[in-house]
Amino acid sequence: MSNEKTIKVGIIGIGARGIGILRMLLNNSDVEVLAVCEKRDAHLEEARQTVAEKKKQDSPTLFTKDYRDILKMDEIQAVFNTASWADHVKIVIEAMEAGKDVAFEVGGAHSIRECWNLVEAQERTGRKCMMLENCCYGRVELAALNMARKGIFGEIVHCTGGYGHDMRHGISLMVENGRYRLPNYIHRNGENYPTHALGPIAKILDINRGNRMVSLVSVASKAIGVEDYIQRNCEPDHPLQGQKFRQGDVISTIITCAHGETIALTLDTGIPRPYSRHFGIFGTKGLYDEDGRCFYFNEGSAEENLKKFLGNEDSYLEEYDHPIWEEKKHNLKPGEGHGGMDALVQQAFIDSIKFDQPTPIDVYDAVAWMCITCLSEESIAMGGAPVAIPDFTNGRWITNKFEQVNKWSI
Amino acid sequence: MSNEKTIKVGIIGIGARGIGILRMLLNNSDVEVLAVCEKRDAHLEEARQTVAEKKKQDSPTLFTKDYRDILKMDEIQAVFNTASWADHVKIVIEAMEAGKDVAFEVGGAHSIRECWNLVEAQERTGRKCMMLENCCYGRVELAALNMARKGIFGEIVHCTGGYGHDMRHGISLMVENGRYRLPNYIHRNGENYPTHALGPIAKILDINRGNRMVSLVSVASKAIGVEDYIQRNCEPDHPLQGQKFRQGDVISTIITCAHGETIALTLDTGIPRPYSRHFGIFGTKGLYDEDGRCFYFNEGSAEENLKKFLGNEDSYLEEYDHPIWEEKKHNLKPGEGHGGMDALVQQAFIDSIKFDQPTPIDVYDAVAWMCITCLSEESIAMGGAPVAIPDFTNGRWITNKFEQVNKWSI
Repeated sequence: MSNEKTIKVGIIGIGARGIGILRMLLNNSDVEVLAVCEKRDAHLEEARQTVAEKKKQDSPTLFTKDYRDILKMDEIQAVFNTASWADHVKIVIEAMEAGKDVAFEVGGAHSIRECWNLVEAQERTGRKCMMLENCCYGRVELAALNMARKGIFGEIVHCTGGYGHDMRHGISLMVENGRYRLPNYIHRNGENYPTHALGPIAKILDINRGNRMVSLVSVASKAIGVEDYIQRNCEPDHPLQGQKFRQGDVISTIITCAHGETIALTLDTGIPRPYSRHFGIFGTKGLYDEDGRCFYFNEGSAEENLKKFLGNEDSYLEEYDHPIWEEKKHNLKPGEGHGGMDALVQQAFIDSIKFDQPTPIDVYDAVAWMCITCLSEESIAMGGAPVAIPDFTNGRWITNKFEQVNKWSI
Repeated sequence: MSNEKTIKVGIIGIGARGIGILRMLLNNSDVEVLAVCEKRDAHLEEARQTVAEKKKQDSPTLFTKDYRDILKMDEIQAVFNTASWADHVKIVIEAMEAGKDVAFEVGGAHSIRECWNLVEAQERTGRKCMMLENCCYGRVELAALNMARKGIFGEIVHCTGGYGHDMRHGISLMVENGRYRLPNYIHRNGENYPTHALGPIAKILDINRGNRMVSLVSVASKAIGVEDYIQRNCEPDHPLQGQKFRQGDVISTIITCAHGETIALTLDTGIPRPYSRHFGIFGTKGLYDEDGRCFYFNEGSAEENLKKFLGNEDSYLEEYDHPIWEEKKHNLKPGEGHGGMDALVQQAFIDSIKFDQPTPIDVYDAVAWMCITCLSEESIAMGGAPVAIPDFTNGRWITNKFEQVNKWSI
């Protein structure tokens, strides 16, 4: 079924995330997967079997351990970069230089220089460059965006977000080479995973489109959760027994925006907790708070009991679902990645190529969100000192506006 | 029924809070109210009527507009200071200098100097000096303290707290002289009400008893909520129409403790919301989060759905109620102030006099909590710069230990 209209893609990096993205690409009738890159033999073999089972097109698929083999293939139009945090930016830049449109997985930046390099490579090449921030297409996040644009929250003054995900067990398993979170938790200390929360919030606050993030402060708690977990739950000869971690168990970051909104991020990955992205929108007319799964829009009832509102989100979502989810919810397949949002963000990228339209998440969005990681590290290293957030648009955030170019626009 | 054993008290400041405290004192069989001070005629008259209806003792009650009249009365042993934020420290110091034990209502400090003056006056006079931080005796807060001391949360790494209370309507009513929140919201910008959250957290983290708060950063959102509320909900000729407020609608503060714990405070009083003190305790073995009204103690279940745990607090409270609440809950009178905790904190002070024991909240506790207000203002004024929190114990926090001297000890 290979034809002119399908988008020919390669994928680089087949870890736990990459294999899922690969499966979705193989199921996507707009796409042909012409090449797969993975350094580790066992993972490359898994990719080979997955392709053999699922492939639709007749054309051969290249399997390689060197991503540069993929960048050399003229027939490949777009590259999916699902490699580790440390390899995102380098590979994305090389892919754009090779003339490919690029989609890449989430992660934080190591330096501000890295962010500028990404921006300048995109500006130089004119290629599409989209972070696959799936949470921008989460049902609650899109409903909140829809409500914010309709003015339901009034004027928004504060947002919360973060990544509340008990990673202790996961980190204890990351002893083989290539599991990228482990060295980050051993050596670094900062808001290492900001984009899931910040992407949707940035869209709601019109970041890069009339607003921008100006400064942040960041503070780390002590780091004992992972070490304690391993000591209590792993075998005495576990290779990480006694390992010290620099990454604080809870990282609190407060960002200030140009128009006075604040964003409070909490990264709590080193303690036991149910999953939460701590997503919250607080305006002059009402609020959403993921940690209570509640909306609230009452006026002037100062003493109301929070307990009455816990878990009330469903009726609001029904009423205010974003058009993307109005369509998606009637059409949801069992077991779709992260409740369906993975397929949405992938299709948003594919359609932007198919119809040659701007991607709904662009390079300026990506660096605005990713730079929070290295700036948080800097602030923590300086005892919570405020640090400035660069304007990667060089002033264009003032005149840029949100535009609805297709159904994926957010 | 006047007798040797009752504690003779005076009360200074009969506002909305003072009249409630006066009623409780009149109902307290350990206490005789010998004097009442209030500057405003109508409020003094209300106090006079309340005393006439409720008074048990035969001795006369003095009503005065000058609190110094009370400090001169030799027969008065203790003074309750329920005056405005701005008058707390000055009156407490004068009362101790006059030989009185003093209980005073909650509030924040205006300066670090004010805090030192309070500490040094207490050290010089040796009088009891207790902030009536009622939330230290809240049911949930005491259960959490009980659980923390039993190690149920494991090692605590992070706490949350704050004051989520929609004050917009209340502030719009504060147009007459003497309503102390209004000028604070017009002129100041900071964490103006830290003690409700911070008192219980400080007890849980052993602040001043093996630990201390070392530094903070504080960031304010824009301030539009109160002005917007008045514009939309009050008459066009309301005297506060068009009034600008300096107080940010949401103030985010992160405190770092000597042993690496962080405390994230949120003061959100300028937006619509149900009441919450955002009380949360996060440790290596589990958590409590008031905003979900949930406890969580599962080990290594990284993907668990928060929704399953919302509102589960009751069974944990039953199991872990603090002894103070084990007694109180079988004995709760309808309509008791703030769910019963007001009576508890009052009795804790009265019993400390009756049995000549240390108060469960001392002057070092009070200033450690109050100073967060002026330090938050300083940090906000400097763009979120970290500021150091003084050690008001001058080093004694290292060797001080929690001691159970009576049933009120926390």
